[in-house]
Amino acid sequence: MSEINTFYTKYGTIFMPKSNMGKNLTNRDTDYSKWYNELVVKADLAENSGVRGCMVIKPYGFAIWEKMQAELDRMFKETGHQNAYFPLFIPKSYLSKEADHVEGFAKECAVVTHYRLKNAEDGSGVVVDPEAKSEEELIVRPTSETIIWDTYRKWIESYRDLPLLINQWANVVRWEMRTRLFLRTAEFLWQEGHTAHATEQEAIEEAETILDIYANFAENYMAMPVVKGLKTESERFAGALETYCIEGLMQDGKALQAGTSHFLGQNFAKAFDVKYTSKEGKQEYVWATSWGVSTRLIGGLIMTHSDDKGLVLPPRLAPIQVVIVPIHRKEEELEAISEKVNEIVKDLRAKGVSVKFDKRTTYKPGWKFAQYELQGVPLRIAMGPRDLQNGTLELARRDTLTKENLPQEGIAEYVVKLLEEIQNNLFDNAIKYREEHTTEVDTFEDFKDVIKNKGGFVLAHWDGTAETEERIKDLTKATIRCIPLNNKKEAGKCILTGADSEQRVLFARAY
Amino acid sequence: MSEINTFYTKYGTIFMPKSNMGKNLTNRDTDYSKWYNELVVKADLAENSGVRGCMVIKPYGFAIWEKMQAELDRMFKETGHQNAYFPLFIPKSYLSKEADHVEGFAKECAVVTHYRLKNAEDGSGVVVDPEAKSEEELIVRPTSETIIWDTYRKWIESYRDLPLLINQWANVVRWEMRTRLFLRTAEFLWQEGHTAHATEQEAIEEAETILDIYANFAENYMAMPVVKGLKTESERFAGALETYCIEGLMQDGKALQAGTSHFLGQNFAKAFDVKYTSKEGKQEYVWATSWGVSTRLIGGLIMTHSDDKGLVLPPRLAPIQVVIVPIHRKEEELEAISEKVNEIVKDLRAKGVSVKFDKRTTYKPGWKFAQYELQGVPLRIAMGPRDLQNGTLELARRDTLTKENLPQEGIAEYVVKLLEEIQNNLFDNAIKYREEHTTEVDTFEDFKDVIKNKGGFVLAHWDGTAETEERIKDLTKATIRCIPLNNKKEAGKCILTGADSEQRVLFARAY
Repeated sequence: MSEINTFYTKYGTIFMPKSNMGKNLTNRDTDYSKWYNELVVKADLAENSGVRGCMVIKPYGFAIWEKMQAELDRMFKETGHQNAYFPLFIPKSYLSKEADHVEGFAKECAVVTHYRLKNAEDGSGVVVDPEAKSEEELIVRPTSETIIWDTYRKWIESYRDLPLLINQWANVVRWEMRTRLFLRTAEFLWQEGHTAHATEQEAIEEAETILDIYANFAENYMAMPVVKGLKTESERFAGALETYCIEGLMQDGKALQAGTSHFLGQNFAKAFDVKYTSKEGKQEYVWATSWGVSTRLIGGLIMTHSDDKGLVLPPRLAPIQVVIVPIHRKEEELEAISEKVNEIVKDLRAKGVSVKFDKRTTYKPGWKFAQYELQGVPLRIAMGPRDLQNGTLELARRDTLTKENLPQEGIAEYVVKLLEEIQNNLFDNAIKYREEHTTEVDTFEDFKDVIKNKGGFVLAHWDGTAETEERIKDLTKATIRCIPLNNKKEAGKCILTGADSEQRVLFARAY
Repeated sequence: MSEINTFYTKYGTIFMPKSNMGKNLTNRDTDYSKWYNELVVKADLAENSGVRGCMVIKPYGFAIWEKMQAELDRMFKETGHQNAYFPLFIPKSYLSKEADHVEGFAKECAVVTHYRLKNAEDGSGVVVDPEAKSEEELIVRPTSETIIWDTYRKWIESYRDLPLLINQWANVVRWEMRTRLFLRTAEFLWQEGHTAHATEQEAIEEAETILDIYANFAENYMAMPVVKGLKTESERFAGALETYCIEGLMQDGKALQAGTSHFLGQNFAKAFDVKYTSKEGKQEYVWATSWGVSTRLIGGLIMTHSDDKGLVLPPRLAPIQVVIVPIHRKEEELEAISEKVNEIVKDLRAKGVSVKFDKRTTYKPGWKFAQYELQGVPLRIAMGPRDLQNGTLELARRDTLTKENLPQEGIAEYVVKLLEEIQNNLFDNAIKYREEHTTEVDTFEDFKDVIKNKGGFVLAHWDGTAETEERIKDLTKATIRCIPLNNKKEAGKCILTGADSEQRVLFARAY
């Protein structure tokens, strides 16, 4: 029996019962990709559905998404944004109105062509009714710029209607060929902000404000350090003049684009004829931004912190921050322990801590220990009959896997502080990992070596052309993740062509 | 200039500027349906989109939906339910697995047949790529029983996995031919609960628990009285053994089905082969419920309380509970007023009141008064330079359209009490309307007369057959809304056939 199936505690050795054996994870070192896929399913976050590329987000995974939504939604509202809801369907002709946009999005998408089914004549079920063909095909939204700007034309008349700061929480569909739970699915959940402004400067400031919100959320809630930067022209959003992004670094040395904020210029205003009357009475085209983060963030969260024993969740996004498991043999023992635990639960809740007291007798303590470890609950409290006599308990940290024996007295205050410490510790570890995996290189040989063997971010000079970017990608699978904001200017030579360069850019292989 | 364009206040007569004139509503008496359609658009709640039957929910309308969601979500969670997310698409074959269900839902729905567009050869835009035809057609979910029960087969093994209490907030699509904003749209937002239980009794109790939550929400938050009851067999959800419902009564005498909760028996468990191992080790089919409320509730909210001047919102669901409008001529006056108002705003917020201080100078007070009246803000505070000297303000109630002159001192406490009073007053008025519009009749002549001329709920005897129900509907457009729960047993004769009946049932014309 391997170490992972046994918990050494002050209560003696707690074995995991057989039904939990299947929860053994592949090690990250053995196969990171397999580890990820297994973890998502075994930790009860999500699973594949019967529909190609579409996932089912299970209650525990969805609870993480709800926590993310609540924080982001608060941040959006505090900066003056309002939520609204636009149609799921986009008439095909709308997509064609903005030239770059249609190139980027019209390709792999779900198309509704009919609006009725009928009984099959042979009684075998239902078939599409050929009579019920839509006049115009409808696209299931891959993103909503077109339908929203078609609406904004009616909403915006005067400078008094601006800025218009709207966000939408919605599902979108992109018919991806290769899908992975959370990271790339045909349907995913996201928020998409769409704003309209009187001036170019104001729109750029909006795109930057949102980038700061995303970075703040990533670092202070997800405990995932990110680099803020600008995408190169070839990586820009289809229809954008500038795409801002945040890039995280996963434990396997690959980058993850975690959020993007686009300055769209007047492209969509012109495509959909959205003008406003300025204070001076002139008709002007409106300036636009759009921005989004998605359920992909959950993938980033998992790959930033989790280990070979399962999920590790930062306390600020953990659906359950503390789990309490009673250790008992007799019914009377459970009753006595419960009485004490209920007091602690009350104290913790009064301090805003999310706590679960798992006193089910249908599962053994060992099973529960393994389950909550796998699901990344930041703190586990165990309490047995001896603790009751001594006024003690055992507190186990998920991040460090350390345990302490503590007095029950004052435990709520201690837990609140410890949760904060865990949140910081996870961020510090991730920063440390990123620092150790960010390398400056000056030759293409070194570049290839680092990308292939060490992984991580690579800072290197680039001649600024799309051709070189493309060739580097073909040769190494590494892409330019971004040109970091406030980048240090430094003269150098492009690692591939030797042409002059004025700054290093951030390369990595990416999800 | 008609009365509606003028506000008589202690500040003198405030005229509405010309730009607001368009906001005059059709009177309810003139054309209730037109009044409703205009109000939804003019109060900035929603509007039709460029996609047939699909609405855009505007920020103000969406803020009401968010308030509804927050309360309902809390109630679901307090009763042990968890949120999850299932795919938007349902493979066509899934729909056919439950015989009644496919009859009810497979007809008018959006069908995805292709997954790619390509550039048209003539350069005219994009066309559907005939090469990219899905192997099996996908249905945009009209409701999710089938995809969810296909998933539950994998989640449920033992009695320890039950009950499974899941809810989903989602968009659904039903290809309705005649649509109306909020009341009947091709796409709408809703929550759908899907639960699995070990016993029949437990599933029935769940369906009833949810019905109580819906009724509690309708009455205590929407201030909309509802009758709880059971649907007749012909009005049942497709696939249900029993459909519980809440029925509200709108101001035009028509009923609105506001929420349904279905006891599904073992129909879906059998269709999707979902069994569990009981404590005794036996394999048993699982018992099911499903239940939902939708953005239709917003339609009910509007039609329960609003008047010829616009929306009237119950304080518990009003996005803005109190609006404060400064009355001033000079910039210095505004500054002095703002200082005082900011204190009041702070006091109100500290008491959990949602307040907006509208000190925009781009709009005149008259415009603001009309706007917030139209949008149903429960309380409006106005403050002018004289008030500042006297320590007073003017407080106007939206529900009664009455105004009071009050000291600024203690205003926050007063507002909190008054909001509660308004909430109760709206409910009392709606109860009174319903009492006045609920009629017992014993002959078919009286029935036709009341349905045609007075409207409202009609309590009448019915012989219990689907044929009679159908004939009454054909002759009068009235349907059996429900058989009220805990109905009084009373022997009588069916109004149409004269056959024996043991209870009156609730008839009405309905939305």
